[in-house]
Amino acid sequence: MNDAQEHREEDAAVGEDSGTRFYGLNDEIVQEIQEAIEREDAALIYERLADWHSADMADLIEQLKPKLRLPFLQIMGERVDPDVYSDLDENVREHLVDDMEPAEIAAFLNELELDDAVDVLESFEEDEQREVLKEIPADERVVLQEGLSYGEDSAGRLMQRNLIAVPEYWDIGQTIDYMRDTDDLPDEFYEIFVVDPRHHPIGTLSLNRAMRSKRQVLVRDIMDTEQKLIPVDMDQEEVAYLFQQYRLASAAVVNEDGALIGVITVDDIVDVISEEAEEDILRLGGVSEDDLFGSVMSTTRARFLWLFVNLLTAIAASVAIGLFDATMEAIIALAVLMPIVASMGGNAGTQTLTVAVRALATKELTAGNMLRILSKETMVAFLNGSIFAVLIGIVAWLWFSSLNIGLIIALAMIVNIIVAAVAGMIVPVTLDRMKIDPAIASSVFVTTVTDIVGFVAFLGLATIVLL
Amino acid sequence: MNDAQEHREEDAAVGEDSGTRFYGLNDEIVQEIQEAIEREDAALIYERLADWHSADMADLIEQLKPKLRLPFLQIMGERVDPDVYSDLDENVREHLVDDMEPAEIAAFLNELELDDAVDVLESFEEDEQREVLKEIPADERVVLQEGLSYGEDSAGRLMQRNLIAVPEYWDIGQTIDYMRDTDDLPDEFYEIFVVDPRHHPIGTLSLNRAMRSKRQVLVRDIMDTEQKLIPVDMDQEEVAYLFQQYRLASAAVVNEDGALIGVITVDDIVDVISEEAEEDILRLGGVSEDDLFGSVMSTTRARFLWLFVNLLTAIAASVAIGLFDATMEAIIALAVLMPIVASMGGNAGTQTLTVAVRALATKELTAGNMLRILSKETMVAFLNGSIFAVLIGIVAWLWFSSLNIGLIIALAMIVNIIVAAVAGMIVPVTLDRMKIDPAIASSVFVTTVTDIVGFVAFLGLATIVLL
Repeated sequence: MNDAQEHREEDAAVGEDSGTRFYGLNDEIVQEIQEAIEREDAALIYERLADWHSADMADLIEQLKPKLRLPFLQIMGERVDPDVYSDLDENVREHLVDDMEPAEIAAFLNELELDDAVDVLESFEEDEQREVLKEIPADERVVLQEGLSYGEDSAGRLMQRNLIAVPEYWDIGQTIDYMRDTDDLPDEFYEIFVVDPRHHPIGTLSLNRAMRSKRQVLVRDIMDTEQKLIPVDMDQEEVAYLFQQYRLASAAVVNEDGALIGVITVDDIVDVISEEAEEDILRLGGVSEDDLFGSVMSTTRARFLWLFVNLLTAIAASVAIGLFDATMEAIIALAVLMPIVASMGGNAGTQTLTVAVRALATKELTAGNMLRILSKETMVAFLNGSIFAVLIGIVAWLWFSSLNIGLIIALAMIVNIIVAAVAGMIVPVTLDRMKIDPAIASSVFVTTVTDIVGFVAFLGLATIVLL
Repeated sequence: MNDAQEHREEDAAVGEDSGTRFYGLNDEIVQEIQEAIEREDAALIYERLADWHSADMADLIEQLKPKLRLPFLQIMGERVDPDVYSDLDENVREHLVDDMEPAEIAAFLNELELDDAVDVLESFEEDEQREVLKEIPADERVVLQEGLSYGEDSAGRLMQRNLIAVPEYWDIGQTIDYMRDTDDLPDEFYEIFVVDPRHHPIGTLSLNRAMRSKRQVLVRDIMDTEQKLIPVDMDQEEVAYLFQQYRLASAAVVNEDGALIGVITVDDIVDVISEEAEEDILRLGGVSEDDLFGSVMSTTRARFLWLFVNLLTAIAASVAIGLFDATMEAIIALAVLMPIVASMGGNAGTQTLTVAVRALATKELTAGNMLRILSKETMVAFLNGSIFAVLIGIVAWLWFSSLNIGLIIALAMIVNIIVAAVAGMIVPVTLDRMKIDPAIASSVFVTTVTDIVGFVAFLGLATIVLL
């Protein structure tokens, strides 16, 4: 009894944390729940997790040791909000759902909003998908199948089909009465859509505008006719761009004929923006997808390709070095110093390419200003290159008591940093024009260039001057 | 006249682009406007830019050659929507505002929403700020100064002060009448706040719920009492986490006493999420802030520090290599091959640290599961390390016809890739616990470790075995 009381006090402390975290999990709770699962103390678990939000519950499941996840769900039983499954990391979800019957899966898909249900369904293999779909009532199955038919990452996947559309000749009173009489409305929405007889959107009416108008005011007189329409096959990255650029709260999705078929709201976009940024971060780091909760084998496979490409480029750099083995044999100081030039070039190149990749993603870098920004980057490289050339020149001179070596490394440094800036800008822009994601491949190209130029410039100059 | 018609057709083509871009700028328009500015063809500019959204206008200004930006604004005059200034890149804005009088600046600040006005004001030096504030009417100045008083990146900066708060004993009819009679409402809002007599928030009422209820229904009977309150000094990153985690559309901001003082809506959060992700991307790439439109000097300065740190670590790696100069002199193949081991370690380490930095940002990686994920990363490194050890071992053996060299590089490779995984996980986690942003410093630590371990393992083993 004292125990329970203590828990309750801790719980309060979690809600109003001492500083950095106000909400969400902490390690003590995870630890406590794990112990409770192990000794099958359902009462404690129920008490501690009462009223938890589905997103926190999903986080908790991710944090549990994998072997405790299914026992946890069995203990929780009906208490698990189906939303938990759409909030879960995909790797963890797949692992859990593997142990469920198609009928169980169908039952909880039923509880999810359409976009979440399609997400869950899509993570299955095709035959699994069919099994599950068989268990779903026909009318909902049709909706799900239509959802699946839109391309991954398309506007069709993001949209909700539930929306309010009214004709322009209605007045506010009719609109409100219609809303009061309709049961199947979305949980949250911000706008009423105004459509013509062919169901083409012709304007929008924000709820606050509608609420502040008298019942007899006509919709057409207060609707906002400026609207951004989203084609159902638009890529989600482009959709996110529109929402950000024009600060939209929601936007109508139209089919090929221009008819209103759905609505995307800004809260769906929040996830897209995170996903797209995450994708760029991971790709720049040579990781193809979020594999934190992936298995050892799948993670190994996913990272292999990038490392293999890097092995080839590293061997190419070594071949370049091998051309100068006689020079290095004569002056071993060159072998000692040569990684510095390559490393500085690699870092300078990475700085430029990071800015370029980001600016391409935000559409700030375009064909129009590319040359101007390239010339700026070259100037920056010249300035920083000169400073570092002097610094490393002096270090090398003093270290090996050879002014010549100092001059050679200084010259190689400035050349390589300028080459790095040019490659760091041109490589991503070129990839982008070739419709290849610059985040995924720029880095390997640029560092290959800076490695090879770094080694060849340094060793080549040394061969000419010193031998 | 034919000319104007042609332009109009082009314009239509921009609106419904052939594929990738549906909205926004394209290079042809930028080029055309630049030429029009140069020949002072105001009529063409007015025609082409009629009804442009402020965000597109800001993009256009960023794309113009710097020397054409002020002439452009002079031609546009009153036609420039003040929102353009808050949409502009900070570097470009500073450059433009330098040429304006404080009174002019004050005039357009007046037109902006509070959070945007504070942003613009904050980008000025302190004395400039004072000059501008002097020109602003006293009542608005107080509001701006209060905005400035909240920490940069705090909830206080993000919030809007305009909101609707009603007592719980009102009915829907009273609420609607109050909204109809109040002029100073925000442009967009999604919720009505319910407060107690001390103005503490006790619930929320979504507009759609309110609209669908009869006039005589009491607010207290339909309000949602589950709400996430945001302390005014909460960091914007934490605020964004709350919005994403709990899919909030808006949330109440409270002061130290718990009284309602503002509201943050999800569209403000969209920008925060982009900003925070951009910060991580740039920092991982060794760039401290978005400098695409920065001057040569400020960009050079900003990038210098990172390159300088890298110079020191590169010299440290060279010192490590220098310990083995006799070994390399005896067997020059070692100098040729050594960058491969370091490079593979660097890449494997970057993969792991990228996943770790991202998982720390999304709160998926915690003290609770750190050991589990570390052991997974080590397994992955062991597997990939073994494969690459065999590959490079065979290449080196055949290249230099020495089985010993093949064995040595294979062993060094596996050691370095495992070290890379461990460092790639432990370094960001440790920095995070020390309250240092792991995105900013992880990469330099990890690559220093993999460089030095790579060189020392390879050359050290060679010294033991071969000499």
